[in-house]
Amino acid sequence: MTEKTKLIVPRLPRGFEDRDASEIAAVGAMIDKIKTVYYRYGFDPVETPLFEFTETLGKFLPDTDRPNAGVFSLQDDDEQWMSLRYDLTAPLARYFAENFEVLPKPYRSYRQGYVFRNEKPGPGRFRQFMQFDADTVGAPGPEADAEMCMMMADVMEALGLTGQYIVRVNNRKVLDGVLATAGVTSDEQKLTVLRAIDKLDKFGVEGVRLLLGAGRKDESGDFTKGAGLSDGQIEPLLAYIESGVPAAGVQKGSNEHVIATINTLAGLIGGSETGLAGVQELATIFGLVSAAGFGGRVVLDPSVVRGLEYYTGPVFEIELTFTITNEKGQPVVFGSVGGGGRYDGLVSRFRREPVPATGFSIGVSRLVNALKLTGNLGASAPIGPVVVLVMDKDHTARYQAMVSELRQAGIRAEMFLGSTKNFGKQVAYADKRNAPAVIIEGSQEREQGILQVKDLVAGKQAAAEITDNAEWKAARPGQFEIKREELVAAIQKLLSEQ
Amino acid sequence: MTEKTKLIVPRLPRGFEDRDASEIAAVGAMIDKIKTVYYRYGFDPVETPLFEFTETLGKFLPDTDRPNAGVFSLQDDDEQWMSLRYDLTAPLARYFAENFEVLPKPYRSYRQGYVFRNEKPGPGRFRQFMQFDADTVGAPGPEADAEMCMMMADVMEALGLTGQYIVRVNNRKVLDGVLATAGVTSDEQKLTVLRAIDKLDKFGVEGVRLLLGAGRKDESGDFTKGAGLSDGQIEPLLAYIESGVPAAGVQKGSNEHVIATINTLAGLIGGSETGLAGVQELATIFGLVSAAGFGGRVVLDPSVVRGLEYYTGPVFEIELTFTITNEKGQPVVFGSVGGGGRYDGLVSRFRREPVPATGFSIGVSRLVNALKLTGNLGASAPIGPVVVLVMDKDHTARYQAMVSELRQAGIRAEMFLGSTKNFGKQVAYADKRNAPAVIIEGSQEREQGILQVKDLVAGKQAAAEITDNAEWKAARPGQFEIKREELVAAIQKLLSEQ
Repeated sequence: MTEKTKLIVPRLPRGFEDRDASEIAAVGAMIDKIKTVYYRYGFDPVETPLFEFTETLGKFLPDTDRPNAGVFSLQDDDEQWMSLRYDLTAPLARYFAENFEVLPKPYRSYRQGYVFRNEKPGPGRFRQFMQFDADTVGAPGPEADAEMCMMMADVMEALGLTGQYIVRVNNRKVLDGVLATAGVTSDEQKLTVLRAIDKLDKFGVEGVRLLLGAGRKDESGDFTKGAGLSDGQIEPLLAYIESGVPAAGVQKGSNEHVIATINTLAGLIGGSETGLAGVQELATIFGLVSAAGFGGRVVLDPSVVRGLEYYTGPVFEIELTFTITNEKGQPVVFGSVGGGGRYDGLVSRFRREPVPATGFSIGVSRLVNALKLTGNLGASAPIGPVVVLVMDKDHTARYQAMVSELRQAGIRAEMFLGSTKNFGKQVAYADKRNAPAVIIEGSQEREQGILQVKDLVAGKQAAAEITDNAEWKAARPGQFEIKREELVAAIQKLLSEQ
Repeated sequence: MTEKTKLIVPRLPRGFEDRDASEIAAVGAMIDKIKTVYYRYGFDPVETPLFEFTETLGKFLPDTDRPNAGVFSLQDDDEQWMSLRYDLTAPLARYFAENFEVLPKPYRSYRQGYVFRNEKPGPGRFRQFMQFDADTVGAPGPEADAEMCMMMADVMEALGLTGQYIVRVNNRKVLDGVLATAGVTSDEQKLTVLRAIDKLDKFGVEGVRLLLGAGRKDESGDFTKGAGLSDGQIEPLLAYIESGVPAAGVQKGSNEHVIATINTLAGLIGGSETGLAGVQELATIFGLVSAAGFGGRVVLDPSVVRGLEYYTGPVFEIELTFTITNEKGQPVVFGSVGGGGRYDGLVSRFRREPVPATGFSIGVSRLVNALKLTGNLGASAPIGPVVVLVMDKDHTARYQAMVSELRQAGIRAEMFLGSTKNFGKQVAYADKRNAPAVIIEGSQEREQGILQVKDLVAGKQAAAEITDNAEWKAARPGQFEIKREELVAAIQKLLSEQ
């Protein structure tokens, strides 16, 4: 590498980011809490590599209607295509099928790690991001779905979000029953209807009515073409959406509310067998939810539509209910931080027999952001090491011995290793590291067998109160003298008091 | 997905592997211990994404003489090449250069994560594997190298390997000095000589002598061409290699031994300035090692050659000294689990000024394997959940309530969620999960307000002693009855006694 080589600009490809110590600590603390809940629920970790054969992954991206959805793929030396995983579900399917004979069934697992999307990055949208999933494979009944919902609720409790979340539950089978009754049969029309229902939060019932009919013009004049349903078709769909609204005097999320909603749904599915099965599953789920004391936190919400072609039964979503201010200065609900549902087609690409599965996925970055907003995550910079200054290059062995004593006592410590001999610059380094103290042994101290300890925390407080420079120099705030042999004890005392 | 679709074989591309719960627990426990030491030494974590621009990574693979060395690369949509990182050092260089203005200097960081090599996988050689690195950037003196060596030693102590490791230290500058004195000047010849020295452990001094000269024929008759040096060139090189062998009566690794070796080295470098600087650095390092109490664990070993074109000063290597049995049934030393050294060219691709750096890398899988062999890592299967059996599908709400009570008391528990109603199969599931106990409430128990608890641990012990089937059925080993309301207390007692 000669001096004349053209320098390279140090930068990352778009959609990728570094994480510093406080971010790593914040995410790590959150993940540990989530793991504790998963463990208590009987889930064990499993980890798959980042690459899979492309044909193994298939094309199961949940949002298949999103533009530019894509995966990172490359050809192996034997010409086979390999891809970086785009979620943690497709690799689970491969893992379960590959280890079918030896795994306990039902198979409960959780998985945490990076996934990759080769698509246009944007604000808050990355090409490498972390997911944290839990799944139960081989459990056919709605009991497994109910457990997923309760586990999500307990995760939110463990993260300190009591009273600030709800887990919203619906069943795709009920939706299918209602659509059949309304005479919506073509896949394309179904998709448009589901998208319209998904907009309830955004546009309200009247907005959805327009989207189900001819279409809707927004404030800017842009027109969205509707599903083109007749009034006779639209009415039962609106009744369906509104079936989740509690009657006057009924508390939202109460047992009474759940039972009323289930009864309304049962009336809307007409003769659909699928719809009936869905209603019965919801009844089972909420029976369990109530028995286990999760009523009001796990709630039935017929407007939940998750993914469009993926789920086959119950679907659920964690919503954080506190409001934040959006870019326009308006208060908006924080919203979803994860969700999931039943997807019984999971393993069918590898095995003939049907393998029922249910699971959910947490968006780690989004949840971390939420916890920062609520103050449930101390994302402060780590406390730095005690820094032993190098006052005299000929005596580094003495400084090293001090550092080793401190470390052996479990105290975070280091000798200053930079090239500068400048006292102020060494202290500035310690400050930047968020060091609690620096240790000073100059020739005078060495002769007297003493050390100067500069308490940087106390020093900062005192310095804030002293405005006069001369006064500051005289007071030397936070600095005190100890005997050399008292080093460990003195620092232990100082740290316990800071 | 129709029934007639051709099934896909569930499998991974070669060189990639899954990790199960016990493997994850083993690696996690080890990593936590290593992090504790790094933290105490003043290092903070940083994480970079898995992709970098290919030009950013450069071609700094440490073993450039290995065949098929390669990286996974693909072209981004703007035609720029991106690659998956092949180590954790090249991304650190980019990160440090990109954040040069804001980072404290010296900058101490540790990084842990997967790296990728697109090369032919083999036994114990993977295309995705984990590294765990620590580096100090911006510290020019050998004090920083000494600290690396001591930190490695403390990591080994923290992992319980006291007395089973040594950190071997050498300096590439000394080697360069000796080579210059011996008249070895061409890069090609240098490489052959370094490779020959690297074989000392394998072939002994006489083997190295042959490799430095005409060449060496092994037992099978295969001939390895030598460096072609004259006897006059070979003698100082052999003296160099043997300079680490203690004289009679001198204890290996003692202060006396270190001083003697350094004196011998000083005599072998002739007039080489580089060699002299190297000897002085070693003297400083071992002064610090001795002052900090690491003598005998961090040892000077002139035969250490690490990487061939990468390091610019001190190099070091952790060697585990216990023996294992190789595939031929012979006892061999376990050997290296990591190493590193000074590489002052690190940031020169991004910035004009020289940025000194030193660091080391631990091979995580290899170290985990070592700890399994020494019994320092309990890689046992996780303790399973208490399983509440489903004796009657109509009463799942009752079972769910039991599970929730147990979980709220912090006890790992689950309701059986499989489709089978068969009692034996449900117990077999619990056994496979390594469950401590199952809870049974049939109709009789329900009426009486009691539960049956089957202690699976005690049951297995008892079953091992009972050989007669009828006797086993009568004894129902490990099974006992409790009142329904005693559930949590009874299970807590059982778990504390197991």
